[in-house]
Amino acid sequence: MGNVVIFEERPELRDPVLVEGLPGVGNVGKIAADHIAGKLDAKCFARIYSKHFPPQVMLDADNVAHLACNELYYVKGTGNNDLIFLLGEYQGLTAEGQFELAEDMMQIAADLNVRRIFTLGGYGTGGVVEDPRILGAVSSVSMKDELEKHGVTFIPGEPSAGIAGASGLILGMARMKNMEAACMMGETSGYFIDHKSAAVLAKVLISILDIDVDMKELDERSQQMEEFTSKIKEIAEGQEKGHLGYIG
Amino acid sequence: MGNVVIFEERPELRDPVLVEGLPGVGNVGKIAADHIAGKLDAKCFARIYSKHFPPQVMLDADNVAHLACNELYYVKGTGNNDLIFLLGEYQGLTAEGQFELAEDMMQIAADLNVRRIFTLGGYGTGGVVEDPRILGAVSSVSMKDELEKHGVTFIPGEPSAGIAGASGLILGMARMKNMEAACMMGETSGYFIDHKSAAVLAKVLISILDIDVDMKELDERSQQMEEFTSKIKEIAEGQEKGHLGYIG
Amino acid sequence: MGNVVIFEERPELRDPVLVEGLPGVGNVGKIAADHIAGKLDAKCFARIYSKHFPPQVMLDADNVAHLACNELYYVKGTGNNDLIFLLGEYQGLTAEGQFELAEDMMQIAADLNVRRIFTLGGYGTGGVVEDPRILGAVSSVSMKDELEKHGVTFIPGEPSAGIAGASGLILGMARMKNMEAACMMGETSGYFIDHKSAAVLAKVLISILDIDVDMKELDERSQQMEEFTSKIKEIAEGQEKGHLGYIG
Amino acid sequence: MGNVVIFEERPELRDPVLVEGLPGVGNVGKIAADHIAGKLDAKCFARIYSKHFPPQVMLDADNVAHLACNELYYVKGTGNNDLIFLLGEYQGLTAEGQFELAEDMMQIAADLNVRRIFTLGGYGTGGVVEDPRILGAVSSVSMKDELEKHGVTFIPGEPSAGIAGASGLILGMARMKNMEAACMMGETSGYFIDHKSAAVLAKVLISILDIDVDMKELDERSQQMEEFTSKIKEIAEGQEKGHLGYIG
Repeated sequence: MGNVVIFEERPELRDPVLVEGLPGVGNVGKIAADHIAGKLDAKCFARIYSKHFPPQVMLDADNVAHLACNELYYVKGTGNNDLIFLLGEYQGLTAEGQFELAEDMMQIAADLNVRRIFTLGGYGTGGVVEDPRILGAVSSVSMKDELEKHGVTFIPGEPSAGIAGASGLILGMARMKNMEAACMMGETSGYFIDHKSAAVLAKVLISILDIDVDMKELDERSQQMEEFTSKIKEIAEGQEKGHLGYIG
Repeated sequence: MGNVVIFEERPELRDPVLVEGLPGVGNVGKIAADHIAGKLDAKCFARIYSKHFPPQVMLDADNVAHLACNELYYVKGTGNNDLIFLLGEYQGLTAEGQFELAEDMMQIAADLNVRRIFTLGGYGTGGVVEDPRILGAVSSVSMKDELEKHGVTFIPGEPSAGIAGASGLILGMARMKNMEAACMMGETSGYFIDHKSAAVLAKVLISILDIDVDMKELDERSQQMEEFTSKIKEIAEGQEKGHLGYIG
Repeated sequence: MGNVVIFEERPELRDPVLVEGLPGVGNVGKIAADHIAGKLDAKCFARIYSKHFPPQVMLDADNVAHLACNELYYVKGTGNNDLIFLLGEYQGLTAEGQFELAEDMMQIAADLNVRRIFTLGGYGTGGVVEDPRILGAVSSVSMKDELEKHGVTFIPGEPSAGIAGASGLILGMARMKNMEAACMMGETSGYFIDHKSAAVLAKVLISILDIDVDMKELDERSQQMEEFTSKIKEIAEGQEKGHLGYIG
Repeated sequence: MGNVVIFEERPELRDPVLVEGLPGVGNVGKIAADHIAGKLDAKCFARIYSKHFPPQVMLDADNVAHLACNELYYVKGTGNNDLIFLLGEYQGLTAEGQFELAEDMMQIAADLNVRRIFTLGGYGTGGVVEDPRILGAVSSVSMKDELEKHGVTFIPGEPSAGIAGASGLILGMARMKNMEAACMMGETSGYFIDHKSAAVLAKVLISILDIDVDMKELDERSQQMEEFTSKIKEIAEGQEKGHLGYIG
């Protein structure tokens, strides 16, 4: 077997919604999901180890070694649904590994009676994004109205290159199993870790889930990033003007 | 299992002929097969999902996500045989994936009592092709006469580099299972998508299958391409002359 | 299963010796084995198909398609032993594929009561080789005396980089199964197909097997190559002298 | 199966400690483990062959071919525990191969009632290391005090890139199976084979295991290396001064 799932606990969950936030473009989805799970004091109940992750251990602050894994957390009694978060530092290294991991995730979700899934990611635009939109893709047309009300934008057929990795596969497999699922992607340049896009994405998800999450920390990181981006922009524009002046 | 086949319908087919038109050199085979299947209103009856395809979903115009797959279509009551088309946007990512997909295709073909297979492809010449020939390879020498009558050219041992991918594997496996099969390849430069070569290939297949297919749309695309190629050629020749004049 | 073996015949062989001559450095082993098997009118009795070979077909002169494979031939009633040849155009594409193919070859050899194996290859020196030696590696020290008598050279621990691919694996696996095996490698530059080294290697093997093989064809190719190499050398030396003269 | 373990002997061992010393950064771990096992006359009792090693044989001084493998050695009646050494010239070629090999090693360790494991490696600093420290990572915080007494340094969370390969995986898997394990890494530049760092690492391990090992040979190699490094440094500094003088 390529993957091993180790449960520390088998939580009883009420109509749980699964939120996936693994690393990806700008780490937008990962930052949003980590933030919400952290602020809700989500509890880790299972770890997924896999031959498809890098063959290594990471060390914690006590120098204790931990095999590369993905983790499942739960939160009870918040909003209308209990929540499950799929978090981690890794995605499968190969195409086949990605498929096998997504399949096992879907099996776990089915075992936990998940009927609704949100996968989170980033959408790389290749340029500076001032006001990141949250783009959406769905398992069923019927979900679009609801998501649009919470600020998700649907551009027909976009992203035209499709959605790669866990966010895409879980969405696609959910559709095949008649689960409701949507992938929400924060626009981002694609060149760096983007807390600003992640904050916008987190707020959309919070609104959809109808939960209460302290956004202070992520908003501050987002603010810092905005200032940093502005400075970069000023410098760039200054150089351009200077350059034009020189020519003139 | 690396591949999963999901049937939406199990059609009863009369002596069906399988036509394979997956992506390849110049997409010649894919364009020809897609055109014929489309004009005949072929009906999708099965999808093949595989860990050997890219780990991603594509979105339709409604932003609904679809896992990468290959598709099987059928047409009844046209020509002398019912028809099955193997279509899609993907081939297996690895050598092993290619073999496993071709094996599963052959099993499906056997289950559907397919006795005859045409695989379609392009043959990259590396230069501009004015009048693309359709080159042939067969599972058995006895097929050559028939195909030549419909315009297929057999150059002994060519293509000398062999035929790679689904078109080659399905042909080779068919020979081992004593099915009749031929691969027909439209000559093409290999540098761009080639509707002209595809149109010629489609007409040869239509003639072999003795079916009626509206070619208008593909002929128009072919015509546009011919004009485009002519212009490129004029410009190139003009530049050459100009350049020589300048030197002279 | 990664490999499929299809037997056309199950020959009854007397104390058979297996000769492996698959493609490799300078194709020295392949050319030697192909030549001997050809001149002895060896008969093909089995083909090994594998997902570890390239996913393609090659065409014969009749444009009939053949899946990539390795082939087993036999010769009866020549020398002291019947002979089996393992020939082909391919080796496994991956490390794992190489192991799986070699394992299946060894199983076939065991089933045919093979007790002695010669694997043939080239040893790339990186420079022009005037008089190629045949270097040897063995499954057991006891074989060295015999091989040296027939002209095999043993340089302790050489080649120090080991022997990669089918020739090495079959030798190593034979040792583990207590079969007698030796790998014989003709020295060659490593930059081109080397009929000269192959001719020397073939003669050593013919001597060991105590068989009669018409060498005329291979000797002619070897002679042509020698002339070609001499000319290259003359031109190179001429240029060098000319260059020195110019300086002087 | 990807791996095959062949036992020459099934030793009865008293509370054995496993020491892993496979190739890695600067070969620090391999040199230290090879030295200790050699000086203690450790006896080889098992070999692990694997499709995840390179598909090749290496030749010994008699030109006898040996398939790539890892080896297990034991030593009885030294220090407080019997010892097992995992040695070899190879690690798995792929991520999946690394996992499968580490899993099989752990199964062998469990079968031999191993309760304690030390994995040895190097930690590449990217610069010249004058006095290599031995950095540590553990399966459990409770081991840190003991190791620090023998000279192991713990830098919280370092190496921050984690520990890759057999040393990391065996440590991480040991923690999951509630075995006591530590990885000890000698600092090294990462640019060459480092006998000096290996000597320091060996002494720390000897102290922990409370065994007696003749260090003369490794100390001499370490001394030679130190002199070599000094000369390199002198030359480099001389050039720098000369260069500055020239400019001045």
